[in-house]
Amino acid sequence: MPAGSRPSPGRSRRRTPSRPAGPPRGNAIIGQSGGPTVVINQSLVGVITGCMEAPFIDKILGARHGVQGILADDFIDLTRQPASVLRDVADTPSAALGSVRKKPTREECLKMFDTFRKRDVRYLFYLGGNDTAETANILLECAKQEKYPLRVFHVPKTIDNDLTVTDHCPGYGSAARFVAQAFMGDDLDNRSLMGVKINIVMGRLAGFLTAASALGRSSSDAGPHLIYVPEVPFNTRRFVADVKRVHKRLGRCVVAVSEGIRDARGVTLAEKIEREIERDAHGNVQLSGSGGVGDHLIDLVKAAIPGVRARVDTLGYLQRSFVGCVSDVDAREAWNVGRDAVTFAAKHRSGTVVLKRAKGPRYKCTTALAPLSKVAKVTKPMDRRFMNADGNDVTEAFLAYATPLIGRLPKIGRLQQP
Amino acid sequence: MPAGSRPSPGRSRRRTPSRPAGPPRGNAIIGQSGGPTVVINQSLVGVITGCMEAPFIDKILGARHGVQGILADDFIDLTRQPASVLRDVADTPSAALGSVRKKPTREECLKMFDTFRKRDVRYLFYLGGNDTAETANILLECAKQEKYPLRVFHVPKTIDNDLTVTDHCPGYGSAARFVAQAFMGDDLDNRSLMGVKINIVMGRLAGFLTAASALGRSSSDAGPHLIYVPEVPFNTRRFVADVKRVHKRLGRCVVAVSEGIRDARGVTLAEKIEREIERDAHGNVQLSGSGGVGDHLIDLVKAAIPGVRARVDTLGYLQRSFVGCVSDVDAREAWNVGRDAVTFAAKHRSGTVVLKRAKGPRYKCTTALAPLSKVAKVTKPMDRRFMNADGNDVTEAFLAYATPLIGRLPKIGRLQQP
Repeated sequence: MPAGSRPSPGRSRRRTPSRPAGPPRGNAIIGQSGGPTVVINQSLVGVITGCMEAPFIDKILGARHGVQGILADDFIDLTRQPASVLRDVADTPSAALGSVRKKPTREECLKMFDTFRKRDVRYLFYLGGNDTAETANILLECAKQEKYPLRVFHVPKTIDNDLTVTDHCPGYGSAARFVAQAFMGDDLDNRSLMGVKINIVMGRLAGFLTAASALGRSSSDAGPHLIYVPEVPFNTRRFVADVKRVHKRLGRCVVAVSEGIRDARGVTLAEKIEREIERDAHGNVQLSGSGGVGDHLIDLVKAAIPGVRARVDTLGYLQRSFVGCVSDVDAREAWNVGRDAVTFAAKHRSGTVVLKRAKGPRYKCTTALAPLSKVAKVTKPMDRRFMNADGNDVTEAFLAYATPLIGRLPKIGRLQQP
Repeated sequence: MPAGSRPSPGRSRRRTPSRPAGPPRGNAIIGQSGGPTVVINQSLVGVITGCMEAPFIDKILGARHGVQGILADDFIDLTRQPASVLRDVADTPSAALGSVRKKPTREECLKMFDTFRKRDVRYLFYLGGNDTAETANILLECAKQEKYPLRVFHVPKTIDNDLTVTDHCPGYGSAARFVAQAFMGDDLDNRSLMGVKINIVMGRLAGFLTAASALGRSSSDAGPHLIYVPEVPFNTRRFVADVKRVHKRLGRCVVAVSEGIRDARGVTLAEKIEREIERDAHGNVQLSGSGGVGDHLIDLVKAAIPGVRARVDTLGYLQRSFVGCVSDVDAREAWNVGRDAVTFAAKHRSGTVVLKRAKGPRYKCTTALAPLSKVAKVTKPMDRRFMNADGNDVTEAFLAYATPLIGRLPKIGRLQQP
């Protein structure tokens, strides 16, 4: 690299001692954490670009697998990556630095500050969801206690769109686009062979991604015909009655179901039926990757509609990783929140970058800064006004909110029946 | 339409009585059957275009849901669809006419011939897989017995690529592209959080689609690291040992598994563990849509590697329906086999259109005609030389065979580690 070497004073040629107190001069660490998205590398390259342009930042260190890389002193030198490499990395899904799910202990925090001191690190940019913001906040509090001048910024990403304060979250638009395209095709498939099709969509606590299944509807009889999210208590009898009603009317029915659907007491269907519950270090239940919820629901449908062709898929990790399905709006915003995190770092000690939507008919979002503590560990459910009164479909308000985020969808052709 | 009206002799203005015996003059029926693909409408529009250009075909009738539409006299008039509609339909996944899984009885065949007579139908183009070819062959035999001059052509499609005679089958290239892109992204995702990831890929009897998971590998350590197909007897102990070995070497492992993997006696893993086995009208076991096989395999991995992060997805119906993931080569060839079916119909009584690959370094395929009976009901397994000696990865021969079929894949960027 040499990543281990401390910059000598002689190398700091851009320092201007005569200027009034500005941002501290030093090195920056960037890390990625939590479940990846297809645009989190856009944010990474946005931060790298911001750091390259910032006169107060010297070296840019990429921590491999987030805090795990800081603890192990395992870094990639990002200071001199060729522009062509950065361009390709930005367009590549998942976390180029590697990710981690880790909430550091007090002891681990102190160990990280040894590294910060040794490597003259004054800036930490941590890219991820609300658990990542929590880790960033823990490190900020530790810096204050240690009286170490570390500026800490959280750069948001999540496919779930469940971060507070921000209008929406980078990563959501592309995952929503994937879900919309999946349902467009699946509805056409289900029209061909006529039956009931259920797709289980990611979303433990927030239904934004499941709701996005509605964004690809190209006609009034297009699926999904029913949508169930964690924010609306799930009732098995109502679900079966809904499916029967749609199937009777159209001879077919496509259903979008959040993996995190739960009853009025808050107990998830997954918890009721999974053989094994796994929890990660942040206490989250691991729901994806098993067909349990879908198999259970499809059995109910088969019992209620004898002889029906009933199928189920659990969309799984493709929602956050599929190569070649990116919202251009999302990609641009993800880059912007990264670059602007560095801009904010010039004047602020800490914060999380949020998106603010401008009022008016044309979609436009700008970035702003919010306190880390407001985002850390908190999840934002979907606004109830985004779901209809019956709690089984989205509203026009949701479509107006989410449509601009996913980019332009492919066109669906239909034969003319004269 | 008026789809019900028989063409009056006066309307047949293109007839030239002085010419020697050519193809019979009359109307054509087009139908789609079996599981849809994302390019089967390319074939549909290819056939429509061929029929429009053929001087011996008057009306073009689209049977809704294949033989079911013929039996119910349920047709869409395809004779005068606007060019812009046909263009959009060609680019739209799934079967625009609706599909069906139905093997007609003798009684139903006779009923269909009543419709053929009533509507002056002399040409039947039936688009689908080997079960569809079987139905076409049944109708051809019936026509011979009935002494009814019906020309019957099968236009091939299947994502499984398991048709005989043809070099490969339209529909495979795009599904293979989807699988390749899915594994590209999933391997990047699994690099981020490090663990074992298994994806269950469609393919009851043929492993072509599962093998396509290898087509997106962008580096020597990229996944999938292990590939299991139905053609190689699956051994649970060898599978576990393979995963442990790769995980020990790289700290991660991505595995592609066909839904139809089976032991040396031919008993599928799915049959062993599924609670319920469904069979369709052609006697095929319905395997997709349940996480059973994946859940079973991932349990084995968790037991063998204590504490490992192990996840599984069943890719499901997205493989054959996802909007926006099409191989341009596949789309073009699918259109060609449709159009050329009509060209062959001018000189032949029946057949299935096959693709023949030209020898030489540059990929090129042309169409040819093969007997219907050669394709009907038969499935072609993957050539053993496409799998390595250990039966857990594809060979260079497979990559050379399949790479030209899926079009150009998105580029993967990686940070430089100096």
